[in-house]
Formats: sequence, structure tokens, C-alpha cells
Amino acid sequence: MQQRYQNRLLTLLSDFGERDVYVGVMKGVIAQVNRSITAVDLTHQIPPQNIAAARFCLMNAYPYFPSGTVHVAVVDPGVGSMRRAVAVELTDGFLVGPDNGLFSGVLSQSQVVAAVELTNPDYWRTSEPSATFHGRDIFAPVGAHLASGVSLKHLGQTIEPSTLVQLAIPGCTHTRLGIIGYIQYIDRFGNLITNIPGAYVQGKTWSVSAAGLSISGGQTYSDVPPGNLVALVGSHNWVEIAVNGGNAQSQLPLDWGSRVQVELQP
Amino acid sequence: MQQRYQNRLLTLLSDFGERDVYVGVMKGVIAQVNRSITAVDLTHQIPPQNIAAARFCLMNAYPYFPSGTVHVAVVDPGVGSMRRAVAVELTDGFLVGPDNGLFSGVLSQSQVVAAVELTNPDYWRTSEPSATFHGRDIFAPVGAHLASGVSLKHLGQTIEPSTLVQLAIPGCTHTRLGIIGYIQYIDRFGNLITNIPGAYVQGKTWSVSAAGLSISGGQTYSDVPPGNLVALVGSHNWVEIAVNGGNAQSQLPLDWGSRVQVELQP
Amino acid sequence: MQQRYQNRLLTLLSDFGERDVYVGVMKGVIAQVNRSITAVDLTHQIPPQNIAAARFCLMNAYPYFPSGTVHVAVVDPGVGSMRRAVAVELTDGFLVGPDNGLFSGVLSQSQVVAAVELTNPDYWRTSEPSATFHGRDIFAPVGAHLASGVSLKHLGQTIEPSTLVQLAIPGCTHTRLGIIGYIQYIDRFGNLITNIPGAYVQGKTWSVSAAGLSISGGQTYSDVPPGNLVALVGSHNWVEIAVNGGNAQSQLPLDWGSRVQVELQP
Repeated sequence: MQQRYQNRLLTLLSDFGERDVYVGVMKGVIAQVNRSITAVDLTHQIPPQNIAAARFCLMNAYPYFPSGTVHVAVVDPGVGSMRRAVAVELTDGFLVGPDNGLFSGVLSQSQVVAAVELTNPDYWRTSEPSATFHGRDIFAPVGAHLASGVSLKHLGQTIEPSTLVQLAIPGCTHTRLGIIGYIQYIDRFGNLITNIPGAYVQGKTWSVSAAGLSISGGQTYSDVPPGNLVALVGSHNWVEIAVNGGNAQSQLPLDWGSRVQVELQP
Repeated sequence: MQQRYQNRLLTLLSDFGERDVYVGVMKGVIAQVNRSITAVDLTHQIPPQNIAAARFCLMNAYPYFPSGTVHVAVVDPGVGSMRRAVAVELTDGFLVGPDNGLFSGVLSQSQVVAAVELTNPDYWRTSEPSATFHGRDIFAPVGAHLASGVSLKHLGQTIEPSTLVQLAIPGCTHTRLGIIGYIQYIDRFGNLITNIPGAYVQGKTWSVSAAGLSISGGQTYSDVPPGNLVALVGSHNWVEIAVNGGNAQSQLPLDWGSRVQVELQP
Repeated sequence: MQQRYQNRLLTLLSDFGERDVYVGVMKGVIAQVNRSITAVDLTHQIPPQNIAAARFCLMNAYPYFPSGTVHVAVVDPGVGSMRRAVAVELTDGFLVGPDNGLFSGVLSQSQVVAAVELTNPDYWRTSEPSATFHGRDIFAPVGAHLASGVSLKHLGQTIEPSTLVQLAIPGCTHTRLGIIGYIQYIDRFGNLITNIPGAYVQGKTWSVSAAGLSISGGQTYSDVPPGNLVALVGSHNWVEIAVNGGNAQSQLPLDWGSRVQVELQP
């Protein structure tokens, strides 16, 4: 009775884009460690060195993957400096990448089992990694080893989870006027995604004030005629501003970080 | 004697782009259903909500996949409205997505075995799907179940195939002056792809009139010197206008939907 | 005792972009040959018909893949003309594509075992290939057969490796003033990658002169304050010009082919 060994799933997220071969090279290195791992791309179009966008994307994708998935994330403006390279084991998955705050969204949602600094070069591609491409030389091979079943403790020095870098993201605040929040992400459709949790408005009558406009809270894009603005709870469970069949970003003077206000009807 | 079970191949087509994690999330959901399915991306750069472009791309890719492949297509401006979510079994494959006409190109080429409306939440990710992201909550998991061998009839209510939405696409017409058609797609190279089937010109002496120019019909790009216009039957078997080593879209005042005319020499 | 057969890894590189279904169609054709091959994308965003960029990308990715990997590369401005379609077996991998110089970077680094012209239509998708899309009809299926274990000699006529097309790329030259070289690639981050090997400067004190500026040679981006220029040996082992946290291309009047000069301190 032989059990067929199943690797863990491995995902990749980066700001490398798809124009160059950086992502392809990481997949080659993964295949050099273990030919039977298939990497799933989360996105490689994080705006260059935008740790906050990476944090948002990873946090929102994480819950949809099978338990035990290894997420390798490389948005790494500090590569070659003193920032730590880390791997984290959570109750429902693994994270591998630079310790610069990009994991702080996932860490706020899931429970850490253990964390290590990647100090053991036995699991790197080379003991003399490039000063500029740890994705290839450290993170991809370490991720591949984790996905192959290597246990976290072999990868390096144990570190205190509370020392992992937290990204300071403005929260949303309840005021007399309503809930004040910010645009924390803008997607390819031009949907403006705030940092106000959908739970705050669900089942209520509500609207969003932004850019001098009041936008009624609805359920879905087609609650309004094509071309019209609508506020709704998006698929990531944040309050967002959208245009039915159109692009809210191009219609409104709002951008990453812009302030918005949710008003609840009594 | 145990037969190793082989999943059906699964493809994804959408207008989600690669910038956000929407596609990655669908792949996570697919892996949650069945870890051994590998999704093949057809394209995720359909212009937002452009059902006609999606119809064209799916119709042209479909014949090149193995029989039994499951195609999940999500260009879904009506998500959350009353448009039906459907799955279709053809003699040579499966389709899963919104019933908005994006399948009408494939349906015109292949024979339907059966069609269902996706009314059985047992095969969804959740019985309370997001109002804005059926790709994640309904289409991806249903596609993964189909690819795993679930039979169509379990997925919901049987519907009459003739009720599936047809997209009204202008045809090409034979006139005394020649064959009148339209640009139905422009690819990344700037090749202008008409809706005139290549079979109408093959083996004949022909030319295309468009934008006040007459462009000789040839066999391949290099039939003309670099930088020159050529008309030919493209790899998708439609008459197209191209520039050898260049971009026809940027050289001609033609766009999606522009009229073109093929003239056959007697 | 049955050994589970393992396919060779297969990669794809092209200038097809991800907007159209050309790449998806090649993957469909590969699956028609062998369902268990998973293609790895190197990049599909080679600037249209830019053989030099394709040569650079393939040469730099090649060493990071397992021995025996089959690389299918389709940047093919001469498709349909008399250029040869070839497959090459190297001591550590295989190349499949048009014989137009795009393999010349890899060929300068690895040793050829044998080369064939793809003259045997038994391994094509169809014996009447499209005049414009050999990627689909010849290169993808041939690559899939190679990855499935077919031996090179079955694919066509043996050719003399020395007859494979070499791309004339300007070299870098040592002069009294220093090492003169050229920008041979610009990546998505705006890093300007020269054709001067890193080995020429490693362990030395050096600087780059370009666009009237002198830029000090460092080890990594963070050797300089954010926003500042730095010269370093990039992950591909070429001298490159970068901006810490920024984009060198947008800050300097340098482009593909621009001249740069490395000065070594005595």
C-alpha cells in the first residue's frame, strides 16, 4: 500500500511583471528543486516596490487556497540590504519572502505556528546569492523545498513572530459623521476599493461620500443604469465604488489613499 | 489493474487582467476542489466587458484543445442581475460561464449534447455567492467539478439549448462589388482580422479595399517588403490586413467594426 | 516494477503577448500531443519581432532550468518565408523554433549535440501548416513530442550546427579609456542592462560613464539613497545602471543600443 506523495501547492506573487524572464527563471529554479511542483501565479504586476499593494493582494487571495499552500511573495525594495528573509508557518499555510511588511495582512487574519529567518544556505540555489535577486536564489528554492515537505525549522534560525515587520496602514474610524476610510486599492476595472469592511454596512441603508458626491449603497453593478456610479461590498468584502459597465477611477478625482466616508441611515 | 484517473483539461478566459489577484483566486478555488487540475490560461485581457471579443477568442481557441476540455469563460457585465449561469456539454468539450452570448461562436461550430442552468449550490464554493464575482464562487468550482468527472446533469436544471443567448454579430455579405465585411478583432500585432472567411478567397486572385486603399491578397507577411501592407488569410482562417514587420492598426484609419471589402478577380 | 515516466519540462517564449489566444492555442496543441506536459511561460512580451531581445531573454533564462528542458521560442518575423524551422539538442537541453538567430545566445554558452531542420510533418499538427503561425502548427507540437521523449533525429533532416544563424550583436571592447559597451536590454524596472560582463568589474573599484554622468559601481540598489543612480552587476551577471527605488530609463537619456563606458580605478 503505497501512498502517492502530494506536494503542497505553491503560489508566486511579485512586482516583476511578465515582460522579462524573472518569473520564468524562478519557475526554472523551482523545477530544479522538484519537477512535480506547478506554481500558480497570483500576480506579477504589483506596482514596482509597492509593498502595500502586495500586502493587499496576498491578504485577499490567501483564504481561497487549500490549507498548506506555500505562498512565495517577492516585492523587495530592500534586497541586498539588512532586511531579513523569512518563512512563516501558519495554521493554514506558509509564507516565504522578505520581512518588510508584505505579509502583515495575512498575519492579521491567520495564526502563526512558527517563523524562521532563512539563514540555512543548504536550501538556497547557491550559497552566494545575487545581491539583487533573492527571489531566484533564496525565496523560490526555499518555497519549493517547503512545498516538497521540508519542515520549517530546517530553513534557518527560529524568530519571534511578534518581530515580523508590520506595515502601518491607516485604519478606518467611526465618527459622528459616519465611517471615515481610504482607498486602499484600485483594480483593473477602475473599481475603488476602500479599507472599510463590508460587514459595517451589510443589511443597512447606506451611502458613500467622496469627491463631493453621494453615492448610494447597492448590492451589485446592475443596481444602477450603465455608466452610473454605485457603492457596494465587493468580492473581497470591502466597501468599493464602481461604475456599472465603466471605470470609476477615470470618472472620479480619487486615487490610492483618497479619503471616503460611509454614511449609515438611521 | 488500476487505471490512473485523468482529469479533463480546464481553461480560463476572462477580462480580469493579470494585475489583480482575481485569476489567482479562481485557481485557488479550483485547487480547493481538485488539487490535480492545472488550469490553462486562454487570455485574461479581453477588453473589460467586451463580450464580442470574448466570443471571438473562445471560438478561435476551442478547436485546438483536446476533446473533453472544460472552458470556463468569465466576461460578465451582468453579474448579479438575472442573466443565467450555465454549463454546456458539446460533443467535443464543455463550456461554463454566464449566458450572455460569449459562447455563441463556439455554439455555431460544435454540436450541443445538453445544457443546464447552474442552480445546484452543492457545486459552488459557497451557497451565498458574492453578487459581483461568480467567477470565483460559481464558475471556477463548477468547472473544476466538471473537469473532475462530475456529470453535467448534477449541476442544475436542464435547459433547452436553443434558449442560449446568441450574440448578434454582423455577417459578411456577397454583393456585386465583392464581399462586404467588418473588422471583428485586432490582435496585439495590430493585425486587422475581418469576419470574412478565408475559404472565400483561397485559390483565387483577390484584394481588399479599405480606408481608400487597395491591398493585394497574398499568402504570408513576407510576400511584401518590410513596412508594406498585405492582405492574407490569417492563422484563424479569416481574411486579415497586416503589415510585414509592422502594425496595420497604427498605419490605417481602421478600428473594431470598420467596414472592408474583398474583391475577387475574375 | 514499473517506472513512472517523467516528461521533460517545456518552456514557451514568444512575442505573442497575453492579449490574444495565440499562447493558449499553443498550449492546447501541446495538450493534444501529451496531456501531462505543463508548459512554463518564460515571457510572451518580447517586443514584436525583436529577435535580439528574445535572444537575450532565452540566453539568460536557459541556465536556470533542469537539464533536458525543451525551450520552444517563437519570435518569427520570417514565418512563411524560406527561413528554416529547427530543433537543436544541447548537452543540457533542447531548443525548438525558427533559425533566425534567436538561439545564438544559448548556442554561445552551451555545447550542441545535434541539430535538425523540422522537415518531418509526422510531428506537426497538420501537414499543411498555416503560413503565419508555425508556433501552433510546427513548433509547439514538435516541442511536445521532444518533451515526451521522441528523439531529435526523427524530427527531420540533420543539419550542420555551424550553419545555424548567428545574430550579429556588438561586443564590448577594451580601450585605453575603459570598457566600451552598449545597453542590450531594458527591463520592466527601467534597469539598463549593458553587454559588459560583470566579471570584468567584480572585486574592483569602478564606475560607469553614460549620458555625461559618472555613476559609481556598487553592490546593490540600497548602496545609494532612494532615487539615486547606482551601477552594479545585475542578477544576469551583466553591468547594469539602476535607480534605488526608481526607474533609470526614465531618468536618463539612454535607450536600447546606447553606448556606455566602464572605468576601472587603478
